[in-house]
Amino acid sequence: MQRYFLKNDQFVDKTVRITESDAHHIQRVMRMSEGERIICCNENGQAALCEIEMISTDEIQGSIIEWLSEEKEMPVTVTIVSGLPKGDKLELIIQKGTELGATRFIPFIADRSIVKWDEKKGKKKLERWNKIAKEAAEQSHRTIVPAVDSPMTLKQLVAASDCTHKIVAYEEVAKQGESSNLHHVLSNLQPGDSLLVVIGPEGGLTEQEVAFLEEHQFIKCGFGPRILRAETAPLYVLSAISYQTELMG
Amino acid sequence: MQRYFLKNDQFVDKTVRITESDAHHIQRVMRMSEGERIICCNENGQAALCEIEMISTDEIQGSIIEWLSEEKEMPVTVTIVSGLPKGDKLELIIQKGTELGATRFIPFIADRSIVKWDEKKGKKKLERWNKIAKEAAEQSHRTIVPAVDSPMTLKQLVAASDCTHKIVAYEEVAKQGESSNLHHVLSNLQPGDSLLVVIGPEGGLTEQEVAFLEEHQFIKCGFGPRILRAETAPLYVLSAISYQTELMG
Repeated sequence: MQRYFLKNDQFVDKTVRITESDAHHIQRVMRMSEGERIICCNENGQAALCEIEMISTDEIQGSIIEWLSEEKEMPVTVTIVSGLPKGDKLELIIQKGTELGATRFIPFIADRSIVKWDEKKGKKKLERWNKIAKEAAEQSHRTIVPAVDSPMTLKQLVAASDCTHKIVAYEEVAKQGESSNLHHVLSNLQPGDSLLVVIGPEGGLTEQEVAFLEEHQFIKCGFGPRILRAETAPLYVLSAISYQTELMG
Repeated sequence: MQRYFLKNDQFVDKTVRITESDAHHIQRVMRMSEGERIICCNENGQAALCEIEMISTDEIQGSIIEWLSEEKEMPVTVTIVSGLPKGDKLELIIQKGTELGATRFIPFIADRSIVKWDEKKGKKKLERWNKIAKEAAEQSHRTIVPAVDSPMTLKQLVAASDCTHKIVAYEEVAKQGESSNLHHVLSNLQPGDSLLVVIGPEGGLTEQEVAFLEEHQFIKCGFGPRILRAETAPLYVLSAISYQTELMG
């Protein structure tokens, strides 16, 4: 069933009020009529089964049939911090990472990032990234839409972060055979914990960046013995987190 | 270091003989000179550190410095069987799946596959898929190149398969809360075992297909509570297999 992510003030008593692009999507893309059903999620991650009651040019009203008790979200929140990569690789990370359960994406300007961040063009990019997250959240039946932040530096990231667990993917330790830290961290996660994962851009993190993160209590982890591309490593760790916290119970 | 996958007969005593596209790559793309080093893998998955000794128009000779003892391959072999998807989604599955350690890819013509397989055009596609696997194997430092087979039907697949473990990703069981079968299967894998994973196309597998696979001892598994796209599910399961067999030891 099609799902829409609404603001809390679009829910009033037993009705929902859908406007703008979501209303357009229901009318023009899905061509739905009165009596058909959709799922509407509020900003708290709660999902309601709704029936469309009234369709007008720029607004759709629905009645809430029932609030659903869906468990679609991982028991921990995961923030993926990716070195700003070339081309549209971040789009792949956001789309697939949303399907795989990430809570938040933060691009960072890495020593080896080739791309420069242009504040002006950046605004449009950020809108596009957030749109990709929203569409992937709908498609994968998430009950929240992951946020995508403006790029920041590692220093800003470390200052802003209050996650309970922090790891950095580092292929140099993997090459030296490090193969137990990721499992050690993941197997100690408790429901409600928050995990911050830093992954380098193409070309990897510099030694200085890794040393800086270590000073701030990040744990260096190998993600297996093969070299993963910058856009594959986030998918690996999200899958491992889901496997550990959702399928090994 | 750049790596090349050669045939066994290109290794003679302490030398390697590199021709055709690999020779072109070394000369024209990498612009390497005599004295530089590369890694050459034979068909048995053994890797040798080699030094380039002689570059001529259509052949490169190298000397083997030493055979490396690399553990880049998973302790189990994994065959990913994907319902033939639209567009270039199989390319993503092959590229990322190779980085994540898959041994073999078999597309299958599913009840809900929208794409028809055209034997004539297909030959070119198959060449392209195998090229993607080779390049991803080089990039991710694999010591074998995964094979990509011609599409087959589920019946042909079942007749041809002699894997020790067989699973099918089925979102209908995930929706009903199935969340233990994947871990049960993966945690029982022994080194040398072989795992066959069937994943549907966009739109999923039909009940008939799932029933047929169940008759042939496939175990239905949920891959977590979110709906994964056809191209994301293979990456999820490969990451989980690596995490279980390579990082939880």
